[in-house]
Amino acid sequence: MPHLKLTIAYDGTGLVGWQRQAEGVSIQGLLEQACAELDGRAVAVAGAGRTDAGVHALGQVASLTLERTIAPDAVGRALNTRLPPAVRVLEAVVVPDRFHARFDARRKSYRYRIANRPVLSPFERAYAWHVPAPTLDIEAMAQAAGALEGPHDFKAFQGTGRETHGTERELYSVRVARVPGGDGIIAFDLSGSGFLRHMVRNIIGTLVEVGCGRRRPGWVVEVLEAGDRALAGRTAPAAGLFLVSVEYDRADADTGSKI
Amino acid sequence: MPHLKLTIAYDGTGLVGWQRQAEGVSIQGLLEQACAELDGRAVAVAGAGRTDAGVHALGQVASLTLERTIAPDAVGRALNTRLPPAVRVLEAVVVPDRFHARFDARRKSYRYRIANRPVLSPFERAYAWHVPAPTLDIEAMAQAAGALEGPHDFKAFQGTGRETHGTERELYSVRVARVPGGDGIIAFDLSGSGFLRHMVRNIIGTLVEVGCGRRRPGWVVEVLEAGDRALAGRTAPAAGLFLVSVEYDRADADTGSKI
Repeated sequence: MPHLKLTIAYDGTGLVGWQRQAEGVSIQGLLEQACAELDGRAVAVAGAGRTDAGVHALGQVASLTLERTIAPDAVGRALNTRLPPAVRVLEAVVVPDRFHARFDARRKSYRYRIANRPVLSPFERAYAWHVPAPTLDIEAMAQAAGALEGPHDFKAFQGTGRETHGTERELYSVRVARVPGGDGIIAFDLSGSGFLRHMVRNIIGTLVEVGCGRRRPGWVVEVLEAGDRALAGRTAPAAGLFLVSVEYDRADADTGSKI
Repeated sequence: MPHLKLTIAYDGTGLVGWQRQAEGVSIQGLLEQACAELDGRAVAVAGAGRTDAGVHALGQVASLTLERTIAPDAVGRALNTRLPPAVRVLEAVVVPDRFHARFDARRKSYRYRIANRPVLSPFERAYAWHVPAPTLDIEAMAQAAGALEGPHDFKAFQGTGRETHGTERELYSVRVARVPGGDGIIAFDLSGSGFLRHMVRNIIGTLVEVGCGRRRPGWVVEVLEAGDRALAGRTAPAAGLFLVSVEYDRADADTGSKI
């Protein structure tokens, strides 16, 4: 009965998101189907973060238990032959039975990408938010973003439609920078204890108000403190968002052997 | 009657290549249709390089003449609204009437990308050749590639099925390197006076024989000198190939005003 931790990358284009839905193809659904084929019975797969439709992942983490004992090395390969090329298991390791991908996550990191140039490259269509003009003010956005770091009630940046146990989170860091040689690509790197629904995308939409010069950097703190979603900027499009990594306490996740 | 030089980027996935075909969607066909809508009559568009099905471009060049006099700036935008997002006009400039995108090209540069890692990233599916193992020997491939630089008869690397006026070309430079932080991506950068059909992909397929250790670097010169396609390596897949840029004599192309 190996209990497993999977690290997974996916291109979320055309998928309904991580979570199984009544309609459409989800990453959880694809993984559960592949695991069921492998294990000969229904398998529940828990994901660290429930990414929305169109959101991508470079390092999503999932946990599950198989009944069959499968040779080390073979699980990742066996799942990849059963998954579409848009979803890839990058690593599979055996972990202690108590490990849970979502409840044990200690730090999540996201990257949001904006293409800030007149014409959107064909290669960025599904991987960036196109903001053709004006040239965004990186320093103003970085200043505004810095004020969001720390433990806060992020209610103002929570999307509607999902129940949450409290809206306090700690944002460890937010970095804003033009990607060198990236031809107008701006990368926002956010790291935190956890994120509310649409929180990254709502923060980005709010920072872009500042980057465009429509608002001053200090306005973002006012939005945060007012705790009112209606005051914040728009929800930035899903295509620009990447779940980069999920980190755990060593004792939970890293004592397992690689399989 | 403005005579124009367009610089174009496209994602070649799912397209039949640059050239108009009886069946399927071509980049030339899309551009000619967009130009015809704009100009109210049939417009012939000449491309610098006839990229094959699935091959991408960061800087393809095309020339054409419009009858309508259209305000500067407006041509690129007007074409982009009529093209699918997979094909983008990056720049449009007015050039002397004698300018021809193909006949006047002096230097073409291509990049070929290999994903040399066990699992192919979902984000590289359409943009790299997946060579999972072994770890390719960059130095051996660079040594072999260096011997191809200079003026040569490249008959051994010519694909079948297209008539050519002679098979002599000058390869100005070939560079092979792992992309820093590229997670197993190897980039081959080739620059030359011109390229025969499938020449880049046949060179890459041949270099990979050396990179895998199946052949020594000196074997590539033997293949070149024998002039026999049957001796060279396989044709590398189209998805890894990008037409990066096409250069012209200043007098031909760069004296025009930007429109």
